[in-house]
Amino acid sequence: MINIGLIGYGYWGPNLARNFQKNHDMKLKAICDFSPDRLKAAGDNYPGVALLNSVDELINDNEIDAIAIATPVSAHFDLAKKVLMAGKHVWLEKPMTETSEQSKILIDLAEKKNRVLIVDHTFIYTGAVRKIKEIIDRGELGDMIYYDSTRVNLGLFQKDVDVIWDLAPHDISIMDYFMPFKKLTVSATGSHYYGNKITPKALLTIYMENNIIAHINVSWVSPVKIRQTLIGGTNKMILYDDNQPSEKIKIYDKGVEMVSTKEDLYHMKVQYRVGDMYAPKVEDLEALALETKHFVECINKGTQPITGGLAGLEVVKILEASKKSLEGNGIPIDLK
Amino acid sequence: MINIGLIGYGYWGPNLARNFQKNHDMKLKAICDFSPDRLKAAGDNYPGVALLNSVDELINDNEIDAIAIATPVSAHFDLAKKVLMAGKHVWLEKPMTETSEQSKILIDLAEKKNRVLIVDHTFIYTGAVRKIKEIIDRGELGDMIYYDSTRVNLGLFQKDVDVIWDLAPHDISIMDYFMPFKKLTVSATGSHYYGNKITPKALLTIYMENNIIAHINVSWVSPVKIRQTLIGGTNKMILYDDNQPSEKIKIYDKGVEMVSTKEDLYHMKVQYRVGDMYAPKVEDLEALALETKHFVECINKGTQPITGGLAGLEVVKILEASKKSLEGNGIPIDLK
Amino acid sequence: MINIGLIGYGYWGPNLARNFQKNHDMKLKAICDFSPDRLKAAGDNYPGVALLNSVDELINDNEIDAIAIATPVSAHFDLAKKVLMAGKHVWLEKPMTETSEQSKILIDLAEKKNRVLIVDHTFIYTGAVRKIKEIIDRGELGDMIYYDSTRVNLGLFQKDVDVIWDLAPHDISIMDYFMPFKKLTVSATGSHYYGNKITPKALLTIYMENNIIAHINVSWVSPVKIRQTLIGGTNKMILYDDNQPSEKIKIYDKGVEMVSTKEDLYHMKVQYRVGDMYAPKVEDLEALALETKHFVECINKGTQPITGGLAGLEVVKILEASKKSLEGNGIPIDLK
Amino acid sequence: MINIGLIGYGYWGPNLARNFQKNHDMKLKAICDFSPDRLKAAGDNYPGVALLNSVDELINDNEIDAIAIATPVSAHFDLAKKVLMAGKHVWLEKPMTETSEQSKILIDLAEKKNRVLIVDHTFIYTGAVRKIKEIIDRGELGDMIYYDSTRVNLGLFQKDVDVIWDLAPHDISIMDYFMPFKKLTVSATGSHYYGNKITPKALLTIYMENNIIAHINVSWVSPVKIRQTLIGGTNKMILYDDNQPSEKIKIYDKGVEMVSTKEDLYHMKVQYRVGDMYAPKVEDLEALALETKHFVECINKGTQPITGGLAGLEVVKILEASKKSLEGNGIPIDLK
Repeated sequence: MINIGLIGYGYWGPNLARNFQKNHDMKLKAICDFSPDRLKAAGDNYPGVALLNSVDELINDNEIDAIAIATPVSAHFDLAKKVLMAGKHVWLEKPMTETSEQSKILIDLAEKKNRVLIVDHTFIYTGAVRKIKEIIDRGELGDMIYYDSTRVNLGLFQKDVDVIWDLAPHDISIMDYFMPFKKLTVSATGSHYYGNKITPKALLTIYMENNIIAHINVSWVSPVKIRQTLIGGTNKMILYDDNQPSEKIKIYDKGVEMVSTKEDLYHMKVQYRVGDMYAPKVEDLEALALETKHFVECINKGTQPITGGLAGLEVVKILEASKKSLEGNGIPIDLK
Repeated sequence: MINIGLIGYGYWGPNLARNFQKNHDMKLKAICDFSPDRLKAAGDNYPGVALLNSVDELINDNEIDAIAIATPVSAHFDLAKKVLMAGKHVWLEKPMTETSEQSKILIDLAEKKNRVLIVDHTFIYTGAVRKIKEIIDRGELGDMIYYDSTRVNLGLFQKDVDVIWDLAPHDISIMDYFMPFKKLTVSATGSHYYGNKITPKALLTIYMENNIIAHINVSWVSPVKIRQTLIGGTNKMILYDDNQPSEKIKIYDKGVEMVSTKEDLYHMKVQYRVGDMYAPKVEDLEALALETKHFVECINKGTQPITGGLAGLEVVKILEASKKSLEGNGIPIDLK
Repeated sequence: MINIGLIGYGYWGPNLARNFQKNHDMKLKAICDFSPDRLKAAGDNYPGVALLNSVDELINDNEIDAIAIATPVSAHFDLAKKVLMAGKHVWLEKPMTETSEQSKILIDLAEKKNRVLIVDHTFIYTGAVRKIKEIIDRGELGDMIYYDSTRVNLGLFQKDVDVIWDLAPHDISIMDYFMPFKKLTVSATGSHYYGNKITPKALLTIYMENNIIAHINVSWVSPVKIRQTLIGGTNKMILYDDNQPSEKIKIYDKGVEMVSTKEDLYHMKVQYRVGDMYAPKVEDLEALALETKHFVECINKGTQPITGGLAGLEVVKILEASKKSLEGNGIPIDLK
Repeated sequence: MINIGLIGYGYWGPNLARNFQKNHDMKLKAICDFSPDRLKAAGDNYPGVALLNSVDELINDNEIDAIAIATPVSAHFDLAKKVLMAGKHVWLEKPMTETSEQSKILIDLAEKKNRVLIVDHTFIYTGAVRKIKEIIDRGELGDMIYYDSTRVNLGLFQKDVDVIWDLAPHDISIMDYFMPFKKLTVSATGSHYYGNKITPKALLTIYMENNIIAHINVSWVSPVKIRQTLIGGTNKMILYDDNQPSEKIKIYDKGVEMVSTKEDLYHMKVQYRVGDMYAPKVEDLEALALETKHFVECINKGTQPITGGLAGLEVVKILEASKKSLEGNGIPIDLK
């Protein structure tokens, strides 16, 4: 049985609490929040759980094995560092930290302390994303060509981060999961309409090795909610629409091929292939329940989570670069 | 009665021929194409029309008042120049020319020769685009914030131009029609998958004065056809989906406002407004028929077309900049 | 404060319990179910609530003011009768009873005992249905012409009732709410594929006064879930699609008119009108929360619920007739 | 080379003319219409074709091998009879005749005269319907359970026939093609709103042997256009949506099974199966082109068309019964 504490009972924290509580190998022992209102809400839902307003008290509690951090990103690094220093496992919300330097420090610390560090890239644990990964891994799509995602809706503006930091981590983590290739260069452009500090609408491009490209469109100022991802391979292509209640994934037997022809050695001839489409059945488990189970397993077996520190770092590196590029109106930033 | 000749009876030419023929104030006199097969096809459909394989013969024909040029873009400038020099009105396919320099020369020439130069930005003449323009012009959207368009499908790869030159002229001309503001900077990123010369998938950003932004996503390698444009104003927002057989335009009474509050002088508070949606009835005339009528009127009255040389130049300037930016992986290019 | 008890904690009961619990003027005191498993589930969720397996114990409890009955329909009449005889208010699931005779007895009993009898036609309390009612009541649709609903999906087969008794009560109650006209005749046809006793797919027609008609299509054997209702008026027409996350209601400014013309006294000329569409904003409250509030108000003020015994009876009368018609392959059954 | 004449150049005739003209084994020789305007329109499009206002002249022309009849249904029988009597092949619009008696006479006459009689059930020749037929014929759906179709839109009211005679022939002919089982009984109900003579909205049920059922919903008074057909089999189910530009056919690996269990000999247990969906590629040929080709082949080879007189008769028998049932508010009418 793993005893877990939770820091932050705001927007996302209640979902964590609910899933920790449901898991039979985990026990939610304490919830910590600075807001008395939020603590009261936590107490109403979880009568037996300790309510704290001091993170140190929680971190120093010897009965606690693991701590989940669901605070604004600016507090992630300091809290996670303390948690790991105290020898506890840590569940960290996305994005992992404000800088890649901080992410690296946490990765090293977790390794040194031999503790599990999981980053909550929730989408990786959804039935749809796992199904697509399975399809890609068995080679059905052929070689990867591109990832193209649109994730737009009205609100909610964040106070401290732009729309790329808020919404794109979902897409970057999914893309990195499907396309574990070296990321080379980032370009980002965005709206300055409401002042430079918080860009509410942006485009993000990530150049990868093998000439693979990712295009991501994120916005807080769209009148409609769109959650649409296209994934292009040389053999097949996928439309993944997370808004659909069913048929979330459509796999198209469509492709484009470049053929050099005898008659025309200098030009390539383009050939199209159009076949059937199919929509595989997608498992309907709650992603957080599965992620919680995975966290428990990693702790018990001492293994690395799918969405561990390295996955978190990859996202932060791209976000970091996107910020510089955004300030330079799309100027390309090379990743190291 | 305006006597018109047509150069190019390939993919688009037949549509022009059909609409010129239907117009009661215009007479289609001659069709010119280098391919005997295409000329034969033209002859089958228009028995009374002269079939030529020499453009000079057509241009020098004194009975011809106007000439439409529906050739690859590389031939646009030379042909249009000859036509104007011969004192004839010219209908030019999009994009207008390969360089903005060439566009400027044609604009000057048309003015000097006092001839009408229309660029075939067909979408401007559709019922949907005209209805949106009407809504914007009566101030219903408030101030403009952004234009965001996705125009993707499978194929057809062009041999000589990348996907931005092929598909984005539609979006750029529509955007410029709705947002006649100074365009400042362009950034473009795209796939190099099939080799650098023909980018089949790209993102384009255009920064305008007043902090307005345009984001355009074009692709020849999408498994599905998407024709979706979001237009954001301070009061209302529009979803224009050209794939829909009805309800092409949806106007959302939704908005975002930044409010400074007494309690918090340093931060802005964001307020959302969500109201009804409506879908205005859209006229169902063929755009080319209306454009032909407009061309005739401009010739008869000596007025400037809505999609004249300046509109064509605006598109070419942005395409030109996009090419440089694309080569530089998104590097921002200032427009002069 | 109204003390309420709940009989039946199966499929729907938990939703009632949750909403009764949330309401500040109501106190959920006891839950009764014959299944020990279900009682245990109830206890886990509501620690302070009494768990009973005897309905009589609940009905005879003097502290209880009202009882909700969420059992199979075959038990509705006996239980509701006992509850009313015991002088308690009653919340009855749909359909109200197995026969119209039983419904009438309950209506009379509630009146004699001066107790509130509400039938849980949940849809009447949804934001969408209330918005449509508002639109109809202000005359926007003109005179009513028809109601046409499709409510199909895969499963769940009921053991004791056919698909009309299971799914059509939703549509019949909504239709009756929008069109409070005298219902004259019923015709129903359905599939006998899996044996006569449980028809899993059926069409239902209800003829009303003023030549208004209702057509209802219900099925448990559809591969896709459809929840689509068309409502025709002489001025406007509505498409109500309950599957849509937003834009559930679309109001079309479309109409058909019959005009007698001078030239042709014997024939009518048909004129069509096609205008804009709009989708009003729909309130997003949980229907059961509103219904619970309404139940409380009716008890406190001694008023009749919107979905009282008479509304329940209307539905049962039509179901009763549909059963006879179904057995006669569509033979029309007059309602008394 | 088959010389063909066309009677009727109204709404549908032009489509026939265009396809007859395109076919290389057929020659359109004459068009006959009583309206001088329509004849002029025909002449503008087909300069070399004879324009007649006398059907007898056409029928007695010895150079004509076949005649297509695209008039109102009331004229079908007399004209088709004359054409067959004159020893010519006949192409007859749907529905075949006003009565089943007439259909039978034409079938006998065609046989006696050894001439081809094709009824223009166009949908049978579409890529989508042929693909579904292919899927059914290879047993993929298992045994047939039901056919359920919705074919509704705004207008056009017919002057002489109700909406069942106008729209349902499409569905009946498709259903009969997929389910060539004995049709037993018909029930139809419909709106009397605009007067009894022309029912603009109706439901139609057809009971078949093997307990298969067809449910058809047709309407001229729907604000939206719906063309949706569900086809249920014991193994798989199909959604055929003719409004979709692509993915017209979706095949669901879903099913319902009734299982008797040991524990419960008296009740059946229902089991659901939910698997993947796929959308096969559908050929994009014009149906009328294919039908014309088929007509030519039948003439040349002396074979029976897929949509010959018997198929036409089947539709007329059901229409005939529907009329009686409609007048009796759904009263079941047995087919002989």
